[in-house]
Amino acid sequence: MSVVELGRFMDDLADASGKAILPFFRAQFGLDDKARGGAPFDPVTEADRAAEVVLRAMIGQTFPGHGILGEEFGSERTDAECVWVLDPIDGTRAFIGGLPTWGTLIGLSRNGVPVRGMMHQPYLAERFTGDGRSARLRAPSGERTLRTRRCADLAQAILATTDPRLFAAGAEAERFRSLEGQVRMSRYGADCYAYCMLAAGQIDLVVEAGLKPYDIVALIPIVEGAGGRVTAWDGGPAAGGGRVIAAGDPRLHEAALKVLNP
Amino acid sequence: MSVVELGRFMDDLADASGKAILPFFRAQFGLDDKARGGAPFDPVTEADRAAEVVLRAMIGQTFPGHGILGEEFGSERTDAECVWVLDPIDGTRAFIGGLPTWGTLIGLSRNGVPVRGMMHQPYLAERFTGDGRSARLRAPSGERTLRTRRCADLAQAILATTDPRLFAAGAEAERFRSLEGQVRMSRYGADCYAYCMLAAGQIDLVVEAGLKPYDIVALIPIVEGAGGRVTAWDGGPAAGGGRVIAAGDPRLHEAALKVLNP
Repeated sequence: MSVVELGRFMDDLADASGKAILPFFRAQFGLDDKARGGAPFDPVTEADRAAEVVLRAMIGQTFPGHGILGEEFGSERTDAECVWVLDPIDGTRAFIGGLPTWGTLIGLSRNGVPVRGMMHQPYLAERFTGDGRSARLRAPSGERTLRTRRCADLAQAILATTDPRLFAAGAEAERFRSLEGQVRMSRYGADCYAYCMLAAGQIDLVVEAGLKPYDIVALIPIVEGAGGRVTAWDGGPAAGGGRVIAAGDPRLHEAALKVLNP
Repeated sequence: MSVVELGRFMDDLADASGKAILPFFRAQFGLDDKARGGAPFDPVTEADRAAEVVLRAMIGQTFPGHGILGEEFGSERTDAECVWVLDPIDGTRAFIGGLPTWGTLIGLSRNGVPVRGMMHQPYLAERFTGDGRSARLRAPSGERTLRTRRCADLAQAILATTDPRLFAAGAEAERFRSLEGQVRMSRYGADCYAYCMLAAGQIDLVVEAGLKPYDIVALIPIVEGAGGRVTAWDGGPAAGGGRVIAAGDPRLHEAALKVLNP
């Protein structure tokens, strides 16, 4: 399969998962449990599962030899050369709250290295894609190449993290707070959008902890394709999840690592 | 001016402010200061001002006797019977970060009571409006009546706040944390969208502090029009800003007030 065909296949995955998810987004508008006959309703789990079933079926049909690691249905053939890493709804709290800052993460690793990634926001019809060498955004307003911005100095940096409560009490939380105290501005609650906005040159630094591989694999080729750097806090590979730091400017990455590893 | 004409005028305000703001949103994509000849660039302030100038001109032309209270250019004739209360970009950090969860707030108070409100998100083309008796959302996906959902019990509630660091250290922060410890889930970073999602039945509780009148006046007729309640933490009117609590279910409002006023 050529690079172009692979891109089309990933677009098909985005189309299909978006169709599976969107009916559940903001589905509570005007409804409550009584209106639904008292049945409990967990739209994010239903949407997550419906989308992952579709994604797994399409991948299994097109690439029967590839492995799959997904949030909802675990892993299969993860010792294969090519492994798809899927999170149908990254940003569960945003989804539940009706906020359009969640996204569908579709990543492809080769021999353990993330080589292609897409973040798809079906409600906004925004697709961020990257292959480690370039990255772009396709949106209703047009198509743009993504480039991180220069920002070498922590004092000038805009930092994002999904939730400061995700850092374990003790050294992990203290190191994050120390870093947060040195930046120009920090913002909470962005989930996968934080990495895409870093790729777009709007945000300089994303620092998180407790990530799973499916939270980050798809985002690495986007950030790196835009000129940024993504590693674990210890400077090693980020594809395994855990404590992750992404920076738009390699000099900022270095400065932040020093604060996180005192 | 009839109710219908007033609605049309508010739509005109939204159209014009959206046109003034959108060129600045994500304007940093692919740019840095060097690419701009080294000139400093503060898109959110520029967008805020451009939009407020347009809004003030339109209001002054159509309603020369009305007062105006705006974020950027202060107040004029606020002793008039009718006063427009404007925040062109509520959610500055979201705007700066490229996230589409900011909004333009356009409120109208009569004798100090908020009677009409709109939250307009021009990038998403979403308009939330309310008049205290009803509320609705117009979006590309269609038009919906907004109704808060029933949720009487703190243990079942979803809470949103823009940033937990906005609560003053001491009693204010402690009371918020006490409330946060009793809910099912809390989420940070939603700005004006939190109130609109509360009106839509996606979120149950919004608790904030340090608000200005222009942060809240436009949102009150939307939340109340959807069946919710918005007051200060002491149970008094919220239109003056400060410490604000909004709840979708009046029983939840009562339960939360007890925690905030021990």
